[in-house]
Amino acid sequence: MSLLVVGSVAFDSIRTPSGHAENILGGSATHFSLTASCFAPVNVVAVVGEDFGEEHRRVFQGRAIDTTGIERAPGRTFRWSGEYMENINEARTLDTQLNVFEHFSPKIPPAYLESEFVFLGNIDPTLQLHVREQLPGARLVALDTMNFWIKSTPEELKRVLARVDLLMANENEALMLSGCRNMRKAAAAIQKLGPRMVVIKRGEYGVIMFMNDLMFSVPAYPLEEVHDPTGAGDSFAGGFMGYLARAADLSEPNLRRAMVYGSVMASFAVEDFGLRRTLRLTPEEIETRFREFKSLTHFDV
Amino acid sequence: MSLLVVGSVAFDSIRTPSGHAENILGGSATHFSLTASCFAPVNVVAVVGEDFGEEHRRVFQGRAIDTTGIERAPGRTFRWSGEYMENINEARTLDTQLNVFEHFSPKIPPAYLESEFVFLGNIDPTLQLHVREQLPGARLVALDTMNFWIKSTPEELKRVLARVDLLMANENEALMLSGCRNMRKAAAAIQKLGPRMVVIKRGEYGVIMFMNDLMFSVPAYPLEEVHDPTGAGDSFAGGFMGYLARAADLSEPNLRRAMVYGSVMASFAVEDFGLRRTLRLTPEEIETRFREFKSLTHFDV
Repeated sequence: MSLLVVGSVAFDSIRTPSGHAENILGGSATHFSLTASCFAPVNVVAVVGEDFGEEHRRVFQGRAIDTTGIERAPGRTFRWSGEYMENINEARTLDTQLNVFEHFSPKIPPAYLESEFVFLGNIDPTLQLHVREQLPGARLVALDTMNFWIKSTPEELKRVLARVDLLMANENEALMLSGCRNMRKAAAAIQKLGPRMVVIKRGEYGVIMFMNDLMFSVPAYPLEEVHDPTGAGDSFAGGFMGYLARAADLSEPNLRRAMVYGSVMASFAVEDFGLRRTLRLTPEEIETRFREFKSLTHFDV
Repeated sequence: MSLLVVGSVAFDSIRTPSGHAENILGGSATHFSLTASCFAPVNVVAVVGEDFGEEHRRVFQGRAIDTTGIERAPGRTFRWSGEYMENINEARTLDTQLNVFEHFSPKIPPAYLESEFVFLGNIDPTLQLHVREQLPGARLVALDTMNFWIKSTPEELKRVLARVDLLMANENEALMLSGCRNMRKAAAAIQKLGPRMVVIKRGEYGVIMFMNDLMFSVPAYPLEEVHDPTGAGDSFAGGFMGYLARAADLSEPNLRRAMVYGSVMASFAVEDFGLRRTLRLTPEEIETRFREFKSLTHFDV
């Protein structure tokens, strides 16, 4: 089934306790689409600048990714620079240059309008709503956001939340958005705002999904070293949505498996800087780690 | 199978965001034995003072708990006072009065010497070793410790670690003990010190067990409110060891179930102050929550 992502393409400069990398390709739409394309074809809507060259476009090529929706605008591509200290769960932003992203107005190519699975990456909620309204036939619309939008545009965020099926948020963001101090209460409060599903991301502690009375928890895969957590959340979303789009099945057992595939893809993403690990992933590695998650969590009643 | 705990009996004064309680019965041996007795008979070795009255002894009675090993000494019982702030995972100690616990020298009644399952609660590692040496026939010896002993008596701690099968530690303690920054590396380093099994407790994020190449993770049950986390670790240990003692089976599937029963018991313990929730637990409630853990974690491959 067709899968659409709207988000950022960026050049990231990242420093972690494991090392550093300069001006590497990143951004939510990039991490999402490269991950999701391991499962299903993806359509991408994003904006890049004149510094986005053939070598960058090639990263998307040879994969099930349609880049017609990646608009090229005058100026430079969005740039982010950040570092992670001892607490690998939290980035400290050193510099943000919005560049072409500042006036980004997502244009959905006509061929994308039938998309049934939609991921609204972390961008201005007004733009997210604008995209949402152009896709009335979508079966599952998921939304990511961040503390910046929760604080600065709460009303716009609530308007788009009322129109989506699923919110993916970090634990702190979920607490901030809901005004609750407890994760379970926060999920219930967010469900009242619209999304029937809430997925709370807890970094090295895993993810948990709330849907009606269902709670489903997946641990993070215990790695010996996390090299770069940048893009882990978008890789989770890419695995989750990509698997659902491939299966075209929103049953509860399948949503559970999607949570695990999301966790699998995030666990690989953080094993190297930027997209490096994701780009060299094989289907066999994905399936092997999926089975490792089973061993990591399974018990007989 | 016979189960033995050596640890503290205390009077706790506790303040949490949910409320407070003064001079309530607590301590590692108390939380452990009351929890474990839901599964199997428990022998307790501990010390109390003259202020430990008939009403306190009654708490242990009418349950499968042998209190012959609770020694009464001149003076007052160990007292601890602490508070939990926003971060419910970490207690701030306000006052500690060792009292009779200062000169505690565990005496194992002859009838306990055949104990096959042993929990060495968080006491001086020299005393833990002394107890360990009197129980050569034990099938499974588990040990709890804390940052205080890791810092002040590292050599004594290493001597007893070399003689136990299982270490249960908080994540920070495991990192401190191993000198590693990564949980998985920490577990491997600790296994080299002796214990073939390492259970790392992560508060509201659950527990994870390392044994040979096996990693098994159980989330904490998502509660709407944690009233008092005091004793959660000992309640986990009580459920874990109690279930194993009842089953008398150390197979991998059973160790996995023991991890879940431990998590079940910890999830109840924190629902009210001190022992209140544990004391009114029914076998049906335990089984119901065990099945809820299954729903919380299960997915089909």
